[in-house]
Amino acid sequence: MLIRAFIPAHITAFFVPKFNDDPLLAGSLGAGVNINKGVNIFVNIENSLERHVHVAFNGEPVKKRNAIISYSVAEELVPKDFLGEVGIWQYFDFPNGYGFGNSAGGALGTALSLAFAFKNMTFLQAAQIAHKYEVLNKGGLGDVIAQIHGGIEIRVKPGAPGIGVVDNIFSENYRVLTVPFGRLSTRKVLDSDVVKLIEIEGKKALEKLLEKPNIENLMKLARSFAERTGLLSGDLLEIARELDKSLKLPASMIMLGKSLFAFLKDEEVEMVQKTLEELSIQNYQICGIWEEKPKVERWIG
Amino acid sequence: MLIRAFIPAHITAFFVPKFNDDPLLAGSLGAGVNINKGVNIFVNIENSLERHVHVAFNGEPVKKRNAIISYSVAEELVPKDFLGEVGIWQYFDFPNGYGFGNSAGGALGTALSLAFAFKNMTFLQAAQIAHKYEVLNKGGLGDVIAQIHGGIEIRVKPGAPGIGVVDNIFSENYRVLTVPFGRLSTRKVLDSDVVKLIEIEGKKALEKLLEKPNIENLMKLARSFAERTGLLSGDLLEIARELDKSLKLPASMIMLGKSLFAFLKDEEVEMVQKTLEELSIQNYQICGIWEEKPKVERWIG
Repeated sequence: MLIRAFIPAHITAFFVPKFNDDPLLAGSLGAGVNINKGVNIFVNIENSLERHVHVAFNGEPVKKRNAIISYSVAEELVPKDFLGEVGIWQYFDFPNGYGFGNSAGGALGTALSLAFAFKNMTFLQAAQIAHKYEVLNKGGLGDVIAQIHGGIEIRVKPGAPGIGVVDNIFSENYRVLTVPFGRLSTRKVLDSDVVKLIEIEGKKALEKLLEKPNIENLMKLARSFAERTGLLSGDLLEIARELDKSLKLPASMIMLGKSLFAFLKDEEVEMVQKTLEELSIQNYQICGIWEEKPKVERWIG
Repeated sequence: MLIRAFIPAHITAFFVPKFNDDPLLAGSLGAGVNINKGVNIFVNIENSLERHVHVAFNGEPVKKRNAIISYSVAEELVPKDFLGEVGIWQYFDFPNGYGFGNSAGGALGTALSLAFAFKNMTFLQAAQIAHKYEVLNKGGLGDVIAQIHGGIEIRVKPGAPGIGVVDNIFSENYRVLTVPFGRLSTRKVLDSDVVKLIEIEGKKALEKLLEKPNIENLMKLARSFAERTGLLSGDLLEIARELDKSLKLPASMIMLGKSLFAFLKDEEVEMVQKTLEELSIQNYQICGIWEEKPKVERWIG
């Protein structure tokens, strides 16, 4: 049996981390957007004499210690008495560590595919397991719950799926420009002093966004958050300013990656592409907003 | 400006009403399914010198007292200082009062379309307004929150969107047969003694479904709920039993309408159509499951 799931990449615009000893109560407040590229997961299940789980990233098998989140999710989802081979093939449209929610996407896609295959758990039960191992292994705090909702999202109450609350903003005809420059360790940032400033600025941004919940306000607040926390500075800030010149809404930083993102309409594409060319930036993508829930289906290849 | 929304019809399989003086805390527990027919809402907005709201059902203008839920929703969503004509055209695929969640669909579609048009509210803020007027006018308790999630749903915590919690069951390739026979007043049933039995049986069904969350168990529990509460009896029960003969999963009653529903796969369609013909039932529909969130978009007609 072959199952396919698609989980959108999730970009965080601003956030407030909410730590908790109970991983289901840990999460984040904030806002971001789900896009129509992300993680494709193929789960292949075949009966055999022994219970085996394999995980592969972009076609390459990975050891347990390098895919601890996905292995843990699979261990909990595959029934204890199942005898057979479970192959979990994860393909990423974006590089790891750049702030696209790859680890959450892989975990959630694994959980939903296995629940779909074995029909032994609900959607939220499976999604909670993905969230739990994401949090326990410091993969992220709010990606899983954002990804199950899709669209431009506001996390208004922290926690796992079924506990946290995610809202959406209405928008029309926007596309999303993503420009990845490098990795940024979420773990390092959250363990540093910046976290205090993130909490203050993130809370302020969330309150202001809920007063006026539209995309213009979202990007104004995202940029202000990125600059005030000091996370967006130096070269990255310079590039954001250059992009601003050919965009109606301000560009901002992807939390947390050394990456930029911006919303734009069709008529702005040509102009921004010219600007990117002038900046000698070839590595960028223009995607759509993923408005739906994740897709899970039987795959007839 | 013309906005179009589609809200799926929502069929309740079993439920536990949860009354509360605060309409945002009122709601229901239970389970049901969203289908790919339901309510299409077109909202036409034009500037003019006065602020006017009109509602029409299936092309016919309706007075305020006959569409109090939709008028109330519009009154709260259209900005106070807006000058113009707002036409709300609701088209129903199913008859009113038969248990398809028409009033919730109309209210939710109106709320989401207006929030999309004016970009002044979030998705949940708009959906809460629809839920509030549904509850206050006894249109229903759990349809709005079920409709925003789609799929085969389990309401695990009661309340308005953003407060209640809705889960989903995984299923594959099922279609939904709906057979409407007549109206049943939700209000009358909820005001009668049957409500005690509904609460006991509904709670039991929900617990059992969460232990084994699959479609076979859902329909077994739905049918048991329908029979034990005495809501499914007489002729309607006889017809359900006839349908059972050509279906793998038991048929059950739509809560609350004098209507039946059943899940079936492609290979069962021919057989059940023959049975319906033998019973001289011509008025039925075979629909798909609506797995997504409601659709809201600008309409270029």
